[in-house]
Amino acid sequence: MNQVIHLKNRPKGKPELEDFEFVEEKKPQAADGEMLLKTKYVSVDPYLRGRMRDEESYIPPFQLNEPLESGIIAEVVESKNPNFEKGDFVNGMLDWKEYQTATGNGLNKVDPDKASLSAYLGILGLTGLTAYISLEHIGKLQEGETLLVSGASGAVGSTVGQIGKIKGCRVVGIAGTDEKIKLMKEKFGFDHGINYKTIDDMNQAVAKACPDGVDVYFDNVGGEILDAAMQNINKDGRVINCGAISLYNMTETPKGPRYEGIMVKKTVRMQGFLVRDHVREFGPATQQLAQWLSADKLTYEETIVEGFKNIPQAFLDLFEGKNKGKMVVKV
Amino acid sequence: MNQVIHLKNRPKGKPELEDFEFVEEKKPQAADGEMLLKTKYVSVDPYLRGRMRDEESYIPPFQLNEPLESGIIAEVVESKNPNFEKGDFVNGMLDWKEYQTATGNGLNKVDPDKASLSAYLGILGLTGLTAYISLEHIGKLQEGETLLVSGASGAVGSTVGQIGKIKGCRVVGIAGTDEKIKLMKEKFGFDHGINYKTIDDMNQAVAKACPDGVDVYFDNVGGEILDAAMQNINKDGRVINCGAISLYNMTETPKGPRYEGIMVKKTVRMQGFLVRDHVREFGPATQQLAQWLSADKLTYEETIVEGFKNIPQAFLDLFEGKNKGKMVVKV
Repeated sequence: MNQVIHLKNRPKGKPELEDFEFVEEKKPQAADGEMLLKTKYVSVDPYLRGRMRDEESYIPPFQLNEPLESGIIAEVVESKNPNFEKGDFVNGMLDWKEYQTATGNGLNKVDPDKASLSAYLGILGLTGLTAYISLEHIGKLQEGETLLVSGASGAVGSTVGQIGKIKGCRVVGIAGTDEKIKLMKEKFGFDHGINYKTIDDMNQAVAKACPDGVDVYFDNVGGEILDAAMQNINKDGRVINCGAISLYNMTETPKGPRYEGIMVKKTVRMQGFLVRDHVREFGPATQQLAQWLSADKLTYEETIVEGFKNIPQAFLDLFEGKNKGKMVVKV
Repeated sequence: MNQVIHLKNRPKGKPELEDFEFVEEKKPQAADGEMLLKTKYVSVDPYLRGRMRDEESYIPPFQLNEPLESGIIAEVVESKNPNFEKGDFVNGMLDWKEYQTATGNGLNKVDPDKASLSAYLGILGLTGLTAYISLEHIGKLQEGETLLVSGASGAVGSTVGQIGKIKGCRVVGIAGTDEKIKLMKEKFGFDHGINYKTIDDMNQAVAKACPDGVDVYFDNVGGEILDAAMQNINKDGRVINCGAISLYNMTETPKGPRYEGIMVKKTVRMQGFLVRDHVREFGPATQQLAQWLSADKLTYEETIVEGFKNIPQAFLDLFEGKNKGKMVVKV
């Protein structure tokens, strides 16, 4: 039998284990032109919370009593498709199933000799692409500027910070434990770290850490940390709205200080970013990331949870900040 | 003697007549290389409120007990500068004085035969340039899109709407009296107008007026009207933050719903605009505006108040919405 994870309830506020359901189905068989895939690594990501809501968005919401999906590395265990061989590894958006069939559409082969399989879900996958493409195309980060990053020890944030250092910028990160601050400084080379949980006054802390102001703020979190970034933003500053994890589990839109005055006065550009809108840039961006990775200019952290049955818990742990770097489940 | 208007107090909240002081000085004399200018038309603009605060901004704040300044058309009544002749008219940032001397730096000659002198403070001045350059370079408005404009019967807003129609867009304007709604539809060709003072639910009103959503929102006002625009913004929508008159007289930053979620989900670009940052585009932009004006594709409304002594009151009246179109004082 084949284990499958369904969305059972649309979470209200913070998701809970009860919102997921494990069901069994017959192990599927590959038809002509298809292959049978065995799930090896499953990416769990904060943005999946958005797809659990029944509302219009950039990708359709998950359906109740249907499998969830996310970025997955799978092994081809049987192939009736001439483009794929048994033993190949593929990367793509796949269902939360132990086994599934696929035509190969939207799947890319990955080479386990060039990088670890899980890296293709992280630094060489959407994580790295998000960091690189958003800094290049939205942030337009320039040498000598100050880059502020929230969620800075996370998968995307730590990559953003390292690219900032490669580009010759002052890089300041914000995270929620002293251990994460240490990690971002020692492993990822950030110039300075701010622990938002032990700081009284975020505005002041950002001002002190960024004496020349903030040129680019890469925002993973929204909320009061964004407020502090805006209080310290420079003329022609850019804010990359990549995520708003501080709001994802709220049932009503929270209020915050209005930014209109700062937007005009400082001619700030604030722009939402979804990596899926930039598929045409994936090729060159992946090449650049792989080059930096093999030249040891980039490194990454990952938290690997073992076991298909632990996928929901690994997802929930994202909202508790229990991951260091990319959160991946090894099946 | 020469009349001069000083800033006497930094206004708290709404400015009052008492914040201004009329003082007399000796009529100045032109030195070699200078000219003596007689003020003819004075532009009063909401953004001047910002310069009355003692805070860092894109232009230095006004000094207490010193003359205010704004866009002024002046006549050269005496010239010791070979580039200007007696009888020329010039346009530039000048002091609120009946007479003043100038070297000619930063001043441009204007031709009273090509357009009325006051038009150079409006449709052919910063007003028209603000509308045109922000739509082109920030809004990147495309044919067939929906353009929403607040402050829509005002000088900038009415020009923005007309350019939207020239570009083949659906144009919806927001203003505060039925007379202004009528004006924007009948004189400026807007497709639809919303009177925010008589509407219960702005979100619904915008949704109804913009059945295909909002592609570009040109914001003069900020506050709850911006909230309604954001509720109806399309994927890849753009918000031009040109002004925030609803906030200018507030002493503390007001709160509003957080936009981070929408920014990410709809990949919105929100960008502050100051026309002074785009001086290099003034030449071609003015040519385009003059061509549309002479081809009767653009029209404008202006409210001309007479008398140097009425400059402060004309400025105060901006915040009461007493102007139709560009507010100018004829001296």
